[in-house]
Parts: sequence; C-alpha cells; structure tokens
Amino acid sequence: MPEVLTSRYLFGPGPSNCYPEVTAALAYPVIGHLDPLFIERLDRTCEGLREVWGTRNSRTLPLSATGSGGMEAAFVNTVSDGDVAVIAVNGLFGERMCEIARRCGATVLRVDHEWGQPVDAERVLAAHPHPKVIAAVHAETSTGVLSDVEPLGAGKGDALLIVDAVTSIGGLELLADDWGIDVGYACTQKCLGVPPGLSPFTVSDRAFERRIKDPRSWYLDIGLLGGYVGAATGSRTYHHTAPVAMIAGLEAGLDRILSEGLDVVQARHQAAGSELRDGLEAMGLELFAAEGSRLPSLTTVKVPDGVDSAAVRAYLLQNFSIEIGAGAGAFASSVWRIGMMGPNANRASVQLVLGALQEAIAKA
Amino acid sequence: MPEVLTSRYLFGPGPSNCYPEVTAALAYPVIGHLDPLFIERLDRTCEGLREVWGTRNSRTLPLSATGSGGMEAAFVNTVSDGDVAVIAVNGLFGERMCEIARRCGATVLRVDHEWGQPVDAERVLAAHPHPKVIAAVHAETSTGVLSDVEPLGAGKGDALLIVDAVTSIGGLELLADDWGIDVGYACTQKCLGVPPGLSPFTVSDRAFERRIKDPRSWYLDIGLLGGYVGAATGSRTYHHTAPVAMIAGLEAGLDRILSEGLDVVQARHQAAGSELRDGLEAMGLELFAAEGSRLPSLTTVKVPDGVDSAAVRAYLLQNFSIEIGAGAGAFASSVWRIGMMGPNANRASVQLVLGALQEAIAKA
Repeated sequence: MPEVLTSRYLFGPGPSNCYPEVTAALAYPVIGHLDPLFIERLDRTCEGLREVWGTRNSRTLPLSATGSGGMEAAFVNTVSDGDVAVIAVNGLFGERMCEIARRCGATVLRVDHEWGQPVDAERVLAAHPHPKVIAAVHAETSTGVLSDVEPLGAGKGDALLIVDAVTSIGGLELLADDWGIDVGYACTQKCLGVPPGLSPFTVSDRAFERRIKDPRSWYLDIGLLGGYVGAATGSRTYHHTAPVAMIAGLEAGLDRILSEGLDVVQARHQAAGSELRDGLEAMGLELFAAEGSRLPSLTTVKVPDGVDSAAVRAYLLQNFSIEIGAGAGAFASSVWRIGMMGPNANRASVQLVLGALQEAIAKA
Repeated sequence: MPEVLTSRYLFGPGPSNCYPEVTAALAYPVIGHLDPLFIERLDRTCEGLREVWGTRNSRTLPLSATGSGGMEAAFVNTVSDGDVAVIAVNGLFGERMCEIARRCGATVLRVDHEWGQPVDAERVLAAHPHPKVIAAVHAETSTGVLSDVEPLGAGKGDALLIVDAVTSIGGLELLADDWGIDVGYACTQKCLGVPPGLSPFTVSDRAFERRIKDPRSWYLDIGLLGGYVGAATGSRTYHHTAPVAMIAGLEAGLDRILSEGLDVVQARHQAAGSELRDGLEAMGLELFAAEGSRLPSLTTVKVPDGVDSAAVRAYLLQNFSIEIGAGAGAFASSVWRIGMMGPNANRASVQLVLGALQEAIAKA
C-alpha cells in the first residue's frame, strides 16, 4: 500500500520541489511517442532547452536518463581508447567525470583543486597541449561552487569543451554558445523544477562532426539519438520509446520558466541565494564555498563545532518536513547543503529554512 | 503553450494507457531520493517487481532508463571483448540485442528465425558449445510472437540466460527463477500500465558473480547500482539520483496489479487477446504471428491487399483518437500491431478497436 501522502520542503541539493505546472503535466493523459501531438511537444521541449542552455545547437534534447546518464553520454560520444581527457576536479562530480572517462578508454589527466574552490582555467589549459576533450563542472553540486567556464572555451584550441550544468541550468546564467561549450549535460530536478529522470543535453555541430562514430553505447549514441529527437535533418527514425510523461513535465517546466522570464527566474535565484547567505552568516555560521564563487542555487555552510549534522537534518525532517543535504565526500558530516532552486527560489523559503535551522541547531 | 489536452486510446505496441492509480501517483508531491519515505517506496517497488518477474533475486530493481537502456545494461554487465554471445533473432529486438552485444565487444552468433515464428531453442542451444551468454526475446514486440524460453534455461549449461520481457511483464506468465533466467529486463509502458522511462531489471546471484567487474558503463554498472537499490547488503550507497516521480508511478502500477491479482490480470490479458484475434479473423483478416505463438498482449494482423496501412492508422487517430501500430522493419506497411495491455486489456477495448478498424478499412 502506498503510504499517506507527505509533502516535503525540498531544500537539499536536489530534487527540488516541482513547479505546479509540472505536477499537472505529469498527470496529463499519456500520448504515444510517435503521435504527431507528441512530436510537436518534443520539438517545443527541445526549443525550450535551447533557451535555457543559451544555444542554437540543433542537437539539443532531453536524454532518457538522469544527469549522471548525461555525463556518461558526454564522454562515450567524444572519447575512446587512448584519447586524452583533461578534467578539472573540484568536487564529487569532477571525480565522477574522471571515472566515466576512464571507463570509456580515455587517458585521463585530472587537474585537482581544493574542494570549495573554483576551477582555475589557466592550470586546466596548461595540463596538456592538445587533448581531445577538456571537461569542467559549471556549478559543483557537491561543494556549492560556481566556476567560470568561459576562459576554458576561449583557450580550448582544438579540444572539445564538456560542461556539467546540472545545478545551473534554468536558474543561473548559462550561455553555451558564447562560452564555447561543445557538449553540455544537465538534469531536470534542480533549478528547472521538474522531477529527476531526464538529462537536458546539447552538442555543437563541431562536436558532432568529431564524435566517436561507433561508440560503445547504443542507448546514448548521439548519432542515433539525433535521428529521432533534435533532428537536424527533418526526418525522424525510431530509436527507443521516449519517456513521454517526463517530457510532458519538462515541457511544462520550461514553459513556466520562459513565461515568467528567464532573467526574472535567474534574479529570483540570485536574490534567494544572497538572502540565505546573509541569514546564515547573521546566525554566526560560516559558509564553505570560496567567496566570490558561491552558487545562488545551492549554498554550503559549515556545521558548527559540537553540532551533530545528522541530528539537525533529522530534526528538520521530523519537525518541519524540511530536507536539507549533508555534505559530500569527506565533508559529509561537516557541511550542510541548502538548495533554493526552481519554485523554492523565493524569500519565503529562505525565512522558513533559516528559522527552522536555528531551532534545530539549538534543540537537536 | 501546451496544447489542449487530448486523450488517446493507446492500442499500439506501447505505450499503453496508464492505470488511474499510476496517473494519480505521478502527481504525488516529490520526495527526495534519500528520504526514508522514498527508500521505503523503493523497497516496496523492488518487492513488487520480484512478484511480476517471478523471482526472489535480491538484485531486482527499476533501472533509470527505458527498456532499451535495460537491454544495454544486460549486455554491458555480462559480456566484454571476445565473449561469445548466442542471440536468437526473430524480430527487431533480437536484432537490437546483436547490435548492443557487438558494441560491448562480444563475438555475436546470431541464430536467425523467420519473423513471425517463435524461437527454436534446439537451434539456439546448438549454436555454440559454451557461450558466455544466450539471449532471447520472450515476447517480440515487433512481431507479436511469444517464445518459450524455459528450454533455453534448462539447456544453457554454464551460459547466462538473458531474456527480454518487455511485452510480457505484468500481463503474461513470467517465471524468471523457474525458467532459469539469469538477467531479465523489461519496460514499464506495456502490460504494467505505467509511462515509459524505467526498466524493471533482475539479476540472479549466479550472473552477479560472473558479471563484468569493471564494465564500460558507469551509469548501468550493476555492481554499483546494487549498492543503492535492490541492495543485498542492507547498506546503501548513493549512486545517482533516482527518478522519484516515475518510481512512484511504477509502485502504484505494481500495487494495482498485485491488488487485482496477478493471475486475474493475466487472465484479463489472455481473454482480451483471444477475443481480439477472433474478431479480426471474423472480419476476414489474417493474423501474422505463427499460430500457437501469438501474444495475448500484442496482436499482429496483415493489412489486406489494396488497403493503405498508414491511411487506416491516420483515420483511426483522427476519427476515434485511437492509436494502433504500424508493422516493424520490412513489415512496416503490411502489418498492423494492436496492443491490449495494462488497463486496456478488457472486452470494451476489443469492441472499440474492432468496430473502429472495420470502419477505417472501409472508408480510409
């Protein structure tokens, strides 16, 4: 038996709560993946994705996998045995990139950074004279750090630039074309306000030309996927059955964001993040991410000495139905991650989490 | 702007319409993938999947991908460079297995059958003395053919048996343990009455022991996935963010089926399929799949001479909002595929599609 319905305030690193338009769309009648009405929906979805990616790439589409599947698609389509991949690592998701690139057969050159610090483009660009790909995370979900990827695009030379935009897409400025991003992947469950399950994906013509022509993965082969979704050719070939309900939800989320105005939504995320940081510091807490590189969508804050991180999170869940995140990796019990993403990026959410957190620290 | 809501009768090869409980569950409030309430939901979902798979495998879980992703997971975890894969091909999905196994590096021995015929276990078992895997499709979605996979399990020797249960799970008898299935994958959008986007997946302990230990895919690595879902160990390790809304839908679909009774649901599929076949033959139409091997869930019927297959399908869509499927591969315009799956497996759907089809053939 399904349990009694429980609502949560999802103020962790994701999933966030959904926009109400998304919830409604998920319960639309299902339409077949080859139905003309669905094809129109898919086209509108791909067009909306171009807007939030800041791209005109024809191959911009929702992959039928989560963000981690998008990460795998980025590498399996660009690197194979012996290709050199320079990967900036300043958190868990940079590390995951290295592991996935290794499994694709790439020779991985990782450029390590202290967690909490942004990517140092100069060091990354100096790591190898002519790598096949350079990869970095725009918004590190594990540390709450925003990195400037534009210098990587400017200095990449012949390399393809792969960027993880999981925690920026739909809430922060993201200009894939202007910044020289060749392959971008993201997820739906953070600033887009859609449940997890799809990966917004974009590939430049340049990257498509230089793709691995017979990649190890059939499911994520962009050469085949391009024939069905995000087609540049005008004709469509069945590849796999699209996750139609999730795509209806994504379409509704994109429509909501673009109707509100992408700049307005971004400003809402900036304001919520700023007010949250101020409030946490006013409580005497210390922020984790380096100053000047703090994500508005996801704030990391140090757990005060003597406070039981897990007990505070449990108190918030039990007393307020609020979820915040533990830290990642070595910081699991010494950092909290607080997301203000999608519909949660507003002043009410900030007040709610600040008040509840203060009580939880005092009483947990 | 989203279009005006349109309901379809989804009588094609899938997706089918959803059970009403599923539609409601998709619009539940989203809960985080690490929330104790979600973990309970995931456990219930995995347990429900064991029921419809007919297995006690601890590693039975919903993969975060569609059925085709499940197919890829089956091979990427079991075969690598030079491993021999014997694959029965009696339709499109057997062919796809060959392509995916090839990309995994396997030496593929395909055992071809005429489309419309069931798998000949003797020929398949005779193809190689000691393959790493033997693979076959239980219910071929492309041809409407049901194959008996039990003799493959009985005769497999040291090989691992991989079975595609995409169009049988939840609607037809499926006894993974009794039949000796080592790795099974399926989809959600057919007899389970859930939208596409997840792949019910099961792995025997024997297959898990013999898995590829460092597979090319990180996303589909059953060694890593087992740590988060379907854990045999009792502890859980974060791998990727689970598609929580789709899993809520799947849980509701499984709960609906098991509450109705798996045997009752299977009988409903049998009765609908039988009545549909009788009705089509009474209209003077000829069935495509070999007699004795016809799927109850998906009926294939030959397009009469002189009738425009696509025009009939368009007529059904425009006049009745009914979707039926074209044929697959070489039979695209000479066969129709009519599914009576999930909530559509009932006598009313049969009458509706028969009446509408008769009019469409006469008038289109």
